[in-house]
Amino acid sequence: MAKGFLLDLAGVLYEGDAAVPGAVAALERLRAAGLPVRFLTNSTRNPRRAILERLARLGFNVAPEALFTPAAAACAVLAERGLAPHLLIHPDLAEDFAGCDRAAAHKAVVVGDAGPYFAYDNLNAAFRALDRGADFLALAANRTFLDADGLRSMDAGAFVAALEYAAARKAEVLGKPAPGYFAAALASMGVAAGEAVMIGDDAEADVGGALRAGLGAAVLVRTGKYRPGDEARVRPAPTAVVADIGAAVDWVLSR
Amino acid sequence: MAKGFLLDLAGVLYEGDAAVPGAVAALERLRAAGLPVRFLTNSTRNPRRAILERLARLGFNVAPEALFTPAAAACAVLAERGLAPHLLIHPDLAEDFAGCDRAAAHKAVVVGDAGPYFAYDNLNAAFRALDRGADFLALAANRTFLDADGLRSMDAGAFVAALEYAAARKAEVLGKPAPGYFAAALASMGVAAGEAVMIGDDAEADVGGALRAGLGAAVLVRTGKYRPGDEARVRPAPTAVVADIGAAVDWVLSR
Repeated sequence: MAKGFLLDLAGVLYEGDAAVPGAVAALERLRAAGLPVRFLTNSTRNPRRAILERLARLGFNVAPEALFTPAAAACAVLAERGLAPHLLIHPDLAEDFAGCDRAAAHKAVVVGDAGPYFAYDNLNAAFRALDRGADFLALAANRTFLDADGLRSMDAGAFVAALEYAAARKAEVLGKPAPGYFAAALASMGVAAGEAVMIGDDAEADVGGALRAGLGAAVLVRTGKYRPGDEARVRPAPTAVVADIGAAVDWVLSR
Repeated sequence: MAKGFLLDLAGVLYEGDAAVPGAVAALERLRAAGLPVRFLTNSTRNPRRAILERLARLGFNVAPEALFTPAAAACAVLAERGLAPHLLIHPDLAEDFAGCDRAAAHKAVVVGDAGPYFAYDNLNAAFRALDRGADFLALAANRTFLDADGLRSMDAGAFVAALEYAAARKAEVLGKPAPGYFAAALASMGVAAGEAVMIGDDAEADVGGALRAGLGAAVLVRTGKYRPGDEARVRPAPTAVVADIGAAVDWVLSR
């Protein structure tokens, strides 16, 4: 029996600016069963404040401390290591780094989904910081996201790959599928990995990441960025593949 | 004894808009020794016409048919396979693709060093063409180039890596270090790979590429993008590492 849940946000709880049908009720069923839930997003386009506002607007009852974002994970790493950030992110996300020490001598390039701000000069400035010896942190390494026009678009991971190739070294990924990201959320609810369930629409970051991090189960939903066959392209395979979060919650609670 | 030479251009014959000291004389010594020479560039920023003009302006005597460019290799592949190009290149290079069939139903994304034209929307349009099934040709996969300000900047290879990561498939690289690119230049002068010498400033593309393509020797020059220690970072190791093209020609002719 599962003792705690990790939920992805975009593509699972909502798509664009609409809640996934049944998602609000599904979350309430978990709460009614007395099961703790943490929200683990790889979104690096919107600041924490905007994510919480959107969740509230769509009817999801989420406490700020239950929301885990890659930007918050990055701020913790920067503080712990005494690094100043060289940000390659969307300007909308900058507020999440407002509390960082900017004066530290040693820098860390921090890459998020900068979208249209992935311009050559911005990328090259980050590359040159790496070339001077800066640390290299990737908020996430997602390949693609489902864009507003319904087609896939290049996500931050592609630009992390570009910098890795130019600098001939690897970034430290802080969001999913990094095991430490799952571990921090599990620790906050005092649930062992093997007793927790991840629900997500990204076969690689959500499902593969969770199972490699030791979670007891990972359920892939067929909403959001899911495409038929995704489950066959990831190892370990999802524990279950279901229509949406409502079906995922039913699947877990019925076991 | 070497029977033919392949020379890289930028960083070997010239740096920026000045000939490398002694380079014109070095080329003349090869000619005087009766040795055929082909010029094998990975530059995809300037069209063929501009490269030939620059060589002439700097005093290098180079016949058009002796110059091999990745763009020409791409045009040959497009024609052979009946593909229309989806170009992700610098506008200056567009004239080298003027003769391509644009009407063919099947497309090939062709990536060159677009520099500031590596904007998000341009990259994402190329990604979406790949997502629709287009072929994937990279003119070159260089990591960095020595920029006008004396610092390294991101080269086309980084953006090829970004597209490869997002599309989860590999590009076919047409320039150095692709063995076929060396082979075409060797065939044009009727020299066997084992009897030819490559001279370049790029340990990976020039030296590693040439030796993997079977060339008898590859000499790394300490001009252009060369950085101390480059020779230790590439396998196979260069046959020799010398100050510049003058020293490289002396080294070969004295053996």
